[in-house]
Amino acid sequence: MKFIIQRDQLIASIQDVMKAISTRTVIPILTGVKIEAKQHGITLTGSDSDISIESYIPAEDDGNVNIEQIQEGSIVLQAKYFPDIIRKLPEKIVEIESDEHLKLTIRSGKAEFNLNGQDAEEYPQLPTLQTDDSFEMPTDLLKNLIKQTGFAVSTMETRPILTGVHMNLKDNILKFTATDSHRLASREIPVKDANIQFPSVVVPGKSLNELNKILDDNDAPIEVSVTNNQILFRTKHLNFMSRLLDGNYPETSRLIPEQSKTAFHVKTKELLNTIDRASLLAKEERNNVVRMTTQGDKLVEITSNSPEVGTVSEEITVQSIEGEALTISFSSKYMIDALKAIEYEEVKIEFTGAMRPFIIRPANEDPILQLILPVRTY
Amino acid sequence: MKFIIQRDQLIASIQDVMKAISTRTVIPILTGVKIEAKQHGITLTGSDSDISIESYIPAEDDGNVNIEQIQEGSIVLQAKYFPDIIRKLPEKIVEIESDEHLKLTIRSGKAEFNLNGQDAEEYPQLPTLQTDDSFEMPTDLLKNLIKQTGFAVSTMETRPILTGVHMNLKDNILKFTATDSHRLASREIPVKDANIQFPSVVVPGKSLNELNKILDDNDAPIEVSVTNNQILFRTKHLNFMSRLLDGNYPETSRLIPEQSKTAFHVKTKELLNTIDRASLLAKEERNNVVRMTTQGDKLVEITSNSPEVGTVSEEITVQSIEGEALTISFSSKYMIDALKAIEYEEVKIEFTGAMRPFIIRPANEDPILQLILPVRTY
Repeated sequence: MKFIIQRDQLIASIQDVMKAISTRTVIPILTGVKIEAKQHGITLTGSDSDISIESYIPAEDDGNVNIEQIQEGSIVLQAKYFPDIIRKLPEKIVEIESDEHLKLTIRSGKAEFNLNGQDAEEYPQLPTLQTDDSFEMPTDLLKNLIKQTGFAVSTMETRPILTGVHMNLKDNILKFTATDSHRLASREIPVKDANIQFPSVVVPGKSLNELNKILDDNDAPIEVSVTNNQILFRTKHLNFMSRLLDGNYPETSRLIPEQSKTAFHVKTKELLNTIDRASLLAKEERNNVVRMTTQGDKLVEITSNSPEVGTVSEEITVQSIEGEALTISFSSKYMIDALKAIEYEEVKIEFTGAMRPFIIRPANEDPILQLILPVRTY
Repeated sequence: MKFIIQRDQLIASIQDVMKAISTRTVIPILTGVKIEAKQHGITLTGSDSDISIESYIPAEDDGNVNIEQIQEGSIVLQAKYFPDIIRKLPEKIVEIESDEHLKLTIRSGKAEFNLNGQDAEEYPQLPTLQTDDSFEMPTDLLKNLIKQTGFAVSTMETRPILTGVHMNLKDNILKFTATDSHRLASREIPVKDANIQFPSVVVPGKSLNELNKILDDNDAPIEVSVTNNQILFRTKHLNFMSRLLDGNYPETSRLIPEQSKTAFHVKTKELLNTIDRASLLAKEERNNVVRMTTQGDKLVEITSNSPEVGTVSEEITVQSIEGEALTISFSSKYMIDALKAIEYEEVKIEFTGAMRPFIIRPANEDPILQLILPVRTY
């Protein structure tokens, strides 16, 4: 195997596939990155067997030559050293060459690294996905969906299914839902020309989080395809594959109250900052609870107290409060997460009593929904 | 106590004194920050009993009013919550008020915090230093001295005296020396009008490191005064006090070879980058050793190998090599630290054999000296 490549292009590719590589894998060869050279381009692969990422650098792209002097071949290289070595090379051009003894030589300027590789034949075969059944969406919209729901997955392995984000595609409506059973986040978006439907697919939250880190924030299309136990996200030069979680996702629609007893509109950022301040004294305790009390029809008071440290209170002006007076306590962290996810300048909050879940939605009727269970404080 | 102050000015002061406050102090009240209001201004104090920092905000400064409505008094407040609270306040103006029950109220906009304080009478008295015997130097020069020597102190408590930087002031020459017994860093600078001399004062490396973080990088004067067991650094609005280390600092001048057998000049940055690359494969092992070999009279080869991972080699062109051919091995970390400290584009390196300490100096004859002991590799 041999090729000459632009250092910066190689670095970008390595950074992408590194996201899938873990030092704690049970399959030793998966601590390495696989490099495969073909006449049409170079493919790097990283995997921890849950997530697999392939990054492709074409030899030529829109008439630009990216890679020269390609001799086909493949090798697996220790991922621990490879990124730093490439990043710190003295020149912008890198020559990579391997011999039949699995020795890899990296040359750039006067620097030469000789590294021990492993046989690419020993690298596990990644599952190949049938991608005829797929749908497309803009990359930045997928990133938004992940950011607006992924934070709400459970981090506890007691109910593994809740560590994933539930995806549902029906009648060209894609819905993401995540819950840790104390709060829930969901969003629906329309998709065009989906030639698949699926009632329930659960993708590990960790996979979506890594995917979000890799994807560029632009509206280039990303293709999504699903099989029984795998999901594939495909962009122009990237294949991101994740296993799906086994098990039945709970029915969440019943959780969402249909009526409200108290409701108001409020500026998202103002409420966020007020809750953030009220949570400062409570940061010791697990739940850092704050209390919200309506005052007449225009004011809401946010308070918190931590017996040893002190108390905090702040009033916030809201648009007219409809319905009953209310005092409710909740986790400031959940509220902050929910408000940050909404990304719209005004929210509507609907309550059905101090002991029932309440709902936060953007005031513009975008189908984002954040639900939080209150905390008993007596 | 009461006063109304600019939030940003208070934040800057808090950040400075926080550098001295540790959560692991044996004196509980030292986990707090002391606030003292006088008609002429506010003083904040933080201390871990090794380091004490006082930051002063004058009520008026060059005709600008910083603080209003001052009622004198003092209180000690939990340092854990105070910085975040002030930073996140909604308005740029902060009102701070305490009552006779040691309750402190912080108001800004509609936010109000009520915090439990402690009696400032219980806060330890800081030692007062007689500052008639002192000298001045530009702040940025002091910062440079710290950066160029402080990294070489020992981090091991086996010889506590080596965890400090040795300061010596004689005949208007100030010298800083630090060594961990494997390497040594020193620099001399002239000072003007010093009306003190001291043969040997050892300041904890940690204290100088914190001082360096606090000081602005400008040439405003900083005043230094020394007593038997304390050193005081004083700028316009800051008092930084540190205890001194007890014990005899070793005589280091004998370590420095007077003649050399091999010497060359080299571009600092080129050598630094080459050593950095050579150290990449060695990062596992404690000493990450690299080997340097002269090749003829113009080339130096840097190599390293890590049996399991591979090898690296790179040639670097130097200005003519004087003296004997040489192969020497040393810690890449020590070399990188030394080259970074020199901050001059070309260095001169002088060797007296593969088993003797070698010396790195800036090519411009500035009295900075970095000494490194080689490593036996056979």
